[in-house]
Amino acid sequence: MPASGEQRTPATIAVVGAGSVGCYYGARLARAGHDVRFLMRRDLEAVRAHGLDIRSKDGDFRLPHVTAVASPAELGEVDWVICSVKATAIEDARALVAPCAGPKTRIVALMNGLGIEARFAGWFGAERVFGGMAFVCINRGQPGVVHHLDYGRVSIGHALDDPTEAEALRALLASAGLEVTVAPNLRYARWEKLCWNVPFNGLSVAAGGVGTQAIVTDEALSRVAEQAMREVVAAANADLAAAGGHERLDPERVVTAMFTQTRAMGDYLTSMCIDYREARPLEVEAILGEPVRRAKELGVATPTIDALYALVRHLGSVRTGPSMAEAVRAS
Amino acid sequence: MPASGEQRTPATIAVVGAGSVGCYYGARLARAGHDVRFLMRRDLEAVRAHGLDIRSKDGDFRLPHVTAVASPAELGEVDWVICSVKATAIEDARALVAPCAGPKTRIVALMNGLGIEARFAGWFGAERVFGGMAFVCINRGQPGVVHHLDYGRVSIGHALDDPTEAEALRALLASAGLEVTVAPNLRYARWEKLCWNVPFNGLSVAAGGVGTQAIVTDEALSRVAEQAMREVVAAANADLAAAGGHERLDPERVVTAMFTQTRAMGDYLTSMCIDYREARPLEVEAILGEPVRRAKELGVATPTIDALYALVRHLGSVRTGPSMAEAVRAS
Repeated sequence: MPASGEQRTPATIAVVGAGSVGCYYGARLARAGHDVRFLMRRDLEAVRAHGLDIRSKDGDFRLPHVTAVASPAELGEVDWVICSVKATAIEDARALVAPCAGPKTRIVALMNGLGIEARFAGWFGAERVFGGMAFVCINRGQPGVVHHLDYGRVSIGHALDDPTEAEALRALLASAGLEVTVAPNLRYARWEKLCWNVPFNGLSVAAGGVGTQAIVTDEALSRVAEQAMREVVAAANADLAAAGGHERLDPERVVTAMFTQTRAMGDYLTSMCIDYREARPLEVEAILGEPVRRAKELGVATPTIDALYALVRHLGSVRTGPSMAEAVRAS
Repeated sequence: MPASGEQRTPATIAVVGAGSVGCYYGARLARAGHDVRFLMRRDLEAVRAHGLDIRSKDGDFRLPHVTAVASPAELGEVDWVICSVKATAIEDARALVAPCAGPKTRIVALMNGLGIEARFAGWFGAERVFGGMAFVCINRGQPGVVHHLDYGRVSIGHALDDPTEAEALRALLASAGLEVTVAPNLRYARWEKLCWNVPFNGLSVAAGGVGTQAIVTDEALSRVAEQAMREVVAAANADLAAAGGHERLDPERVVTAMFTQTRAMGDYLTSMCIDYREARPLEVEAILGEPVRRAKELGVATPTIDALYALVRHLGSVRTGPSMAEAVRAS
């Protein structure tokens, strides 16, 4: 396989935790000819009966016949596992992934948050663990329907930052025509995504469950978003320095890019906002808690993120009815 | 009148904007023999029919016959005006106070926020303007009923920090058996109250409309409250220094005192929380906006208060149905 080419041999792929992100990327891979099997709960019957319906700004498509299963044992051993469960379900991820992970299976954590790959590496060995960050505006519709609203790039990295391994994942995703970026390193990629997730997921809940336009059109909220973003960059750069790398996030570039993209994306409901509105567990530790704790360890002051973390944690704990495990199974 | 004595001559007093604070302090003054007239709207009929009913931790009492009026013209010229309208109604205060302000009338702004006395001074002349800060847990009950739950001290100051004038107000309030503190200066007193109002009013709304116990029993929210309090102290001390005074707030003493008092006061609903729950205008500019702007002028960073300000402003603007003027008339 050429270094910059696409993976032309069909792969077997298990999408574990097929919410909107898992369904969308899995469907793209299936359409490209890979053997994709989806572990899902809420949409299972609908997908078995009618397949997957992707309404995408890049072109709608349907997959009439989709392998959708209810339990991990039915997935079989695969070449790739794409684990896209909510970060709130990280404790369940091991049991969900293990049945389809043979000795050569590679595992991609297509999830939000810091410290995710370390968990998978502890369970399955770092050499076959990857991280994926989807920069995408996506929501679920009716069962079996995914609305891909905007963007779609996936930033990827390997848990040991092995370039050959990273290239294998890049080639797989590129074979489905997806835009892929191999991050300088996984740590960098995780922080890069947090630059958006911290302010916009955080404020979308703290401001009462609002879309992105309510934030970017409110001058005071925008300033808070920018301040939170700059605190993420400061923590990121301290973390990257502590890890001995030379990559840094440029705060001006990050602020300009993130606000430009967010203003252009219409009134997007963040995943945390949707979870909040639907009284599901929020990814508050993965998106806000872990960055806050890491910043504290590094001696970086993050007062704005501290406030968002405390408020979102409180708001989420009040709103959340079902147990985490139940919510995972329902999602 | 002796310097540290009480005012024994009955005074004529107009309470303008008789919500819970105005009703309580006005009732205490009336019980002490002063001629107190209340301008009120919501409770007018009930008070005319049944008087005022004060349920107080210092002892319940009733005033069966209360002079309650619906328009400022009915108040007549008085010795003292106690203006206790919401800070959101500051623009209406001039028209409400003017009819009862003769050449010798003194005016006490018993209201929240920074910059309040400057407005009254501009309208009526600083030499007869006072500020009052009520450190009190108080809520309205049924029409004509006030629940005085805890505390009650009033910190006072004169707009020009004239000690003789301040003493006149102290004596008036002391004649009703109230606990009164003459602040070192009015600026100090305003900031001292903001040390509590900013974190607890702000967080009570930002955390979804919660009581004080939800804040002090949540470790992360408590830390945010403390951080906001420390930012208020920093802004206060910069402001006091800029004004050339020597008084300073001691952050450790403030934090300890405010948290001790708040933990002891039970699950108190801040006035801003009640306004938020009842979809009335919030005192967001007086309590959060003005301190933030003053801190910016002084070059003091207040990231936590910035976040609270932006969030509360947004939450209030979404929740608030009626116009400010309507809400004032209804209160």
